[in-house]
Amino acid sequence: MSILVVGTVALDTVETPSGKSEDGLGGSALFFAAAASHFSTVHLVGVVGKDFPMVNIDFLKKRNVNFDGMHILDGKTFRWGGKYHEDLNTRDTLFTELNVIENFYPTVPESYQQSEYVFLANTGPKLQEHVLNQVKNPKLVICDTMNLWIQIAKDDLMRLLKRVDILMLNDSEAQMLTGQRNLVAAAKKVHSMGPHTVIIKKGEHGALIMNKGLYFYSPSFPVEMAVDPTGAGDSFAGGFVGHLAKVGKHDDTTLKQAMIMGTVMGAYCVEKFSVDGLIDITWDDILNRYNQIREFVHFDPVT
Amino acid sequence: MSILVVGTVALDTVETPSGKSEDGLGGSALFFAAAASHFSTVHLVGVVGKDFPMVNIDFLKKRNVNFDGMHILDGKTFRWGGKYHEDLNTRDTLFTELNVIENFYPTVPESYQQSEYVFLANTGPKLQEHVLNQVKNPKLVICDTMNLWIQIAKDDLMRLLKRVDILMLNDSEAQMLTGQRNLVAAAKKVHSMGPHTVIIKKGEHGALIMNKGLYFYSPSFPVEMAVDPTGAGDSFAGGFVGHLAKVGKHDDTTLKQAMIMGTVMGAYCVEKFSVDGLIDITWDDILNRYNQIREFVHFDPVT
Repeated sequence: MSILVVGTVALDTVETPSGKSEDGLGGSALFFAAAASHFSTVHLVGVVGKDFPMVNIDFLKKRNVNFDGMHILDGKTFRWGGKYHEDLNTRDTLFTELNVIENFYPTVPESYQQSEYVFLANTGPKLQEHVLNQVKNPKLVICDTMNLWIQIAKDDLMRLLKRVDILMLNDSEAQMLTGQRNLVAAAKKVHSMGPHTVIIKKGEHGALIMNKGLYFYSPSFPVEMAVDPTGAGDSFAGGFVGHLAKVGKHDDTTLKQAMIMGTVMGAYCVEKFSVDGLIDITWDDILNRYNQIREFVHFDPVT
Repeated sequence: MSILVVGTVALDTVETPSGKSEDGLGGSALFFAAAASHFSTVHLVGVVGKDFPMVNIDFLKKRNVNFDGMHILDGKTFRWGGKYHEDLNTRDTLFTELNVIENFYPTVPESYQQSEYVFLANTGPKLQEHVLNQVKNPKLVICDTMNLWIQIAKDDLMRLLKRVDILMLNDSEAQMLTGQRNLVAAAKKVHSMGPHTVIIKKGEHGALIMNKGLYFYSPSFPVEMAVDPTGAGDSFAGGFVGHLAKVGKHDDTTLKQAMIMGTVMGAYCVEKFSVDGLIDITWDDILNRYNQIREFVHFDPVT
C-alpha cells in the first residue's frame, strides 16, 4: 500500500566529529522517503527552491518515490546548519533559513489522496493538518513532532493529535508534552490526547512502543561508527511506516516488526552523512540487520 | 552449584524522592546474596561490627546463605549515606564510614574453598584478590568494580583482571577503564586485559553482554515506581551469577538467560528501600517477570 508523507525537504550543512557535509540532502520528508521507499511506494509533499539539485533525488524516483507533490518555488530551499558535540547526543543549531517553506500550504495532488498511510513528518502542525485534511480515507495516520512545536504551537498540535493514530516523539519531548517523567505514565497521557499508540525514541538507547495491550522495546543497532545522527528519527519512521504499508496491517505482531525495521533504517542513516547511508543498501542488507537484532535480544525460556 | 561472594556488608542511610531509609541493610555482598539466594547456595565473606542487627539477615539464612565467613569485629559496621537527585540517575554521597572494613583481609572458611562460582562484588581489588587466592579451583570468576578502584587502585585491579572470566561494570566505568567511548571498542579492550566476557550495565537503559561470539542486549524492566536504586547493580549480579550457578553452565544460551535474571532482580531491588524488594518475592514472581521481558523484546522474523 502507499504512503503519503508531508514534511521538510532541506539542504543541510552538518559538522560532526567525523567531518563536514555542505548542502547535503536533508529534511524530515526526504529522510523518511529515503528509508520508506525500500518498503513501499511513497508520495511526497514538500517544497524546494529553484536552487534545489533535482538530479540528486533521482535515486528516490527509481525507488517509486512520487514527487508530483513536491513544489518548486522561486526562492531558496530551506537550509539548516548544525554542529554536533563529541558524543553526538547534543548539537547546536548554527542557522535555520526557512526560505520557501514559510507559508507553504499546498494542494495535495489527486493521485495522492487515496494513500492508505499518512506520515506527518516533523514540520509545523498546521501544515500537517492542512495536508491530512486532503486525504480521503486514511487507514492509519502516524505523526512525528518536536519540542519546537510543543512550545510554540501546542494548541494546533493538540487539535491535530485527536486525529492521529500513532504519535512518535523522543523521551524529552514526551516529558515536555505530558509533564510525565515516567515513560509509561507519559504514554498513558498521550493516549488521552488521541493517539492509541505511542512510540518513544531514546536515540542510542532504542525505542519503545506502547498501546493498550502492547509494550515492546527495540534496542538500538550497534553501529561500528556513527558519523552523523541527522535524520535518524525520520529514517526510523521510514522503516516503521514502510513496513506497515508493505504488510498492510498494524496488529501487534506487525507493529513489533516495524519497530525493528525502523531501528535498522535509523542505523543505516547514521553511518554516513545526509541520506547517503540509505541509498545503496539492498533488501538483503536490511533483512540481515533485522535478523542480527533478533540475535541480539532473543533468549530462551527457563522453567 | 555454590557461589562464594566477597564484598561489603553495610548499613545504608538513603534519601530519595520517595522517602528516607536509615541504617538499612546494604553493601555489595548483601545485595548480591539477597538476589542470588533465590537461585543457589551462597557463601558470604564479609565483615560487620558488633552493632550489626544480625536478626535482620535471618531471611537470608533461611534461603541457604552461609554466613560462616562473615566476621563480627569489635567496632562499628561500615556505613554509607547518600541522597539521590530527582531523576535517580545521580546521587551525592553524604558520608562514608569505613569502620571495620578497613584492613579486612580474612581467612576464607574451608567449607567455602570448593565454591565453583566466585563473585568478587564491588570492594577493593586487593581484598578481592586475597579472597580469590583462597578458592581452590573456581569454575568461573565474575568481578564487579567501580570508578573509585579504577582511579585509586588501577594496578591492583589490572593484576586481578588477568584472573577474571567475566567483568561487569557500568558504561562510564568502562570508558574510564579503557579510554574507549564506543562500548563495543571498550569491550574489546577489556578482553585484552583478561576477562573473556564483559557486561556493561546502562542502568535504566538495560545491559549488554559481549564475548568473542556473543553480543546480547537486555532491556531494563519497566518498574511502575523506582524508589531506591541502591544495590540495583549488585542485585543484577545476583540474578546473573545465581542463574549460572543454578544451571551449572555458562554457554551463550545460559549467559543470555542469566542477563535477564539479572534484570529481573535489579528491578525488584529498586522498587523498595534497602534489600526489602528482594525478601518476599517467590520463584513464580521471578519467572513471571522473566516471561514478561520475553514479551517486551520478542518479535517474529520477516521474509
